[in-house]
Amino acid sequence: MINIPQRILLGPGPSDVPPRVLEALGRPTIGHLDPVFLQLMDDIRTKLKAVFSTQNEMTLAMSGTGSAGMETLFANLVEPGDKVLVAVNGVFGGRMADVAGRYGAQVETIEAPWGQSFKQADIIEAVERIKPRLVAVVHAETSTGVLQDVDRLGAAIHEQGALFLLDCVTSLGGVPVEIDAWGVDAAYSGTQKCLSCPPGLSPVTFSPRAVERLTQRQQKVQSWYLDLTMLRQYWGEERAYHHTAPINMLYGLQEALSIVLEEGLEARYQRHRAMHELLRDELKTLGIGYASQEGHHLPMLNAVTIPEGVDDLTTRRRLLDEYGIEIGGGLGAFKGKVWRIGLMGHASSRRNVTLLVAALREILG
Amino acid sequence: MINIPQRILLGPGPSDVPPRVLEALGRPTIGHLDPVFLQLMDDIRTKLKAVFSTQNEMTLAMSGTGSAGMETLFANLVEPGDKVLVAVNGVFGGRMADVAGRYGAQVETIEAPWGQSFKQADIIEAVERIKPRLVAVVHAETSTGVLQDVDRLGAAIHEQGALFLLDCVTSLGGVPVEIDAWGVDAAYSGTQKCLSCPPGLSPVTFSPRAVERLTQRQQKVQSWYLDLTMLRQYWGEERAYHHTAPINMLYGLQEALSIVLEEGLEARYQRHRAMHELLRDELKTLGIGYASQEGHHLPMLNAVTIPEGVDDLTTRRRLLDEYGIEIGGGLGAFKGKVWRIGLMGHASSRRNVTLLVAALREILG
Repeated sequence: MINIPQRILLGPGPSDVPPRVLEALGRPTIGHLDPVFLQLMDDIRTKLKAVFSTQNEMTLAMSGTGSAGMETLFANLVEPGDKVLVAVNGVFGGRMADVAGRYGAQVETIEAPWGQSFKQADIIEAVERIKPRLVAVVHAETSTGVLQDVDRLGAAIHEQGALFLLDCVTSLGGVPVEIDAWGVDAAYSGTQKCLSCPPGLSPVTFSPRAVERLTQRQQKVQSWYLDLTMLRQYWGEERAYHHTAPINMLYGLQEALSIVLEEGLEARYQRHRAMHELLRDELKTLGIGYASQEGHHLPMLNAVTIPEGVDDLTTRRRLLDEYGIEIGGGLGAFKGKVWRIGLMGHASSRRNVTLLVAALREILG
Repeated sequence: MINIPQRILLGPGPSDVPPRVLEALGRPTIGHLDPVFLQLMDDIRTKLKAVFSTQNEMTLAMSGTGSAGMETLFANLVEPGDKVLVAVNGVFGGRMADVAGRYGAQVETIEAPWGQSFKQADIIEAVERIKPRLVAVVHAETSTGVLQDVDRLGAAIHEQGALFLLDCVTSLGGVPVEIDAWGVDAAYSGTQKCLSCPPGLSPVTFSPRAVERLTQRQQKVQSWYLDLTMLRQYWGEERAYHHTAPINMLYGLQEALSIVLEEGLEARYQRHRAMHELLRDELKTLGIGYASQEGHHLPMLNAVTIPEGVDDLTTRRRLLDEYGIEIGGGLGAFKGKVWRIGLMGHASSRRNVTLLVAALREILG
């Protein structure tokens, strides 16, 4: 057995998992149709609805990581030939365009430079011009550290008869996510970011409007594993067997959601905001600034510019080897130029900010 | 937090998980690109190769349950219009036909009655007649308790230029699975059966012949999440980010595989065989016989006929409530007529057989 070190996870995810969640993972496995387990599924749904701020009955955890959640939305809501508009300003917008295309969508994109957010008016203009059936936006772009304003999009998208899809992988539990108030029709997240549960599940939620689109499909959902027309009969009253749920991961998610709701969503958002500001001020003293647009920084994922003359890999390797701290490198256009410093969920603490800054100060001299 | 009872899992899966595996699940989460985690992935591959009896380099654990493994094979190996032959004698053969169809295959099936296995000659005859590009067979049909002989299929399938796909969800770790010796080109399994790890991962293996088919694809793999052309760059030397691996589940799988190999495959097969025979003899004294074909019973999943006048649900509910024992009901054509008694992995013990038979004797009077 390999010895697993105790890291401090300040990268783009997974984030640090609190002891209560780790303990929950190790509880004895029970059956996926056990009455006790069905009760646990109901409780998870109730808690997910609270965290998503939604009344959507079709709210559940998919048996895969966040990317499986992304694929769930497109697999279930795209029919071949559907026009899908994707707003791309980083890796995950690009991934959505790729996934939608694989499910037969006619994909149209609008783009913003890496590190920039979209003006909502620009997205709305594109919706009115392109008249898609689905519009997909990333709320928190993990590759660039950018928070996207989305509160005005729902109404405009619905006016065109389209559905509004939102990637909440990194935002959920760290900044306000208002599925119902914003008119979001389908959203997905991951467990390993601000929910502080290990990776392996993807919470998703579908509005009644999205469920109607699903019900009216002409063709079978292209993916069996992600097919919500079947899976909802397991999460619903029928409890019909679809696939064997990942029991122990769901123990962990239930515990993680309990911790989120015990802290309270507002308090949690406030903590993420405060720790982000602390980090930002401290990094400034080291001469380190942000790669993401001013006023649109993600509090839980800080994309900062690697200072001139500093080697990316050497520095991250020293943080890991000498301090047990993981931070993330850049992806795509930001590779070698940007660090991604996560302060997500349980890991968003004054202690971690202080330690990271002190360690960086020692390494950078 | 819901109190999780300590069950004895003698159904069709999940099976009981040994304490060492539960403890492993709760080890601290580390990053999916952490050097220690990459070492753990390599170790899992080495151990999976041993359990699958294969030299296939493309052997890995997919980030979903067994059904995701099934879908992985068809998503990666089917191109639209390909002729796929599926041998159907239960739920899981039927599911393979469904999945293959969703990926654009022209699906042909041969069928055997529920509870019966195929004669290998009949499958070979169909292969020669239909000339498919892929042939898919279930090694251990969990819905009917039938073990399928497959040792002669590989050569005949290869003679036609086709690939041989095998469902090993329930067989792996419980009866001999000889991927290389049998000429299997792609196989999948689940962790929650004879490997005695919680559900959530699907071990898969692809032969060089299957990898070549994958490499020569004309079209993108239809599923992004299951796309091995990308995923192999994460499990391979490039270590390119695809999706965030389910870290803690992989801790559990590593530990579960260690336990399997410490016992030794031959000893493990022998234990499953012996406990099956013990159960069979004991059930006979209760007047309970098998629904599966004589000589083809699965040792780890006993499909037995519910005695005349005995109520299925009441009996299973009493086993669960009064004894904490889970056994499985029938699926499809066997619903209400058959119990499925699992003696899988860690749960395949004399103590469990003795307890179950004693409990059934008390309930059935």
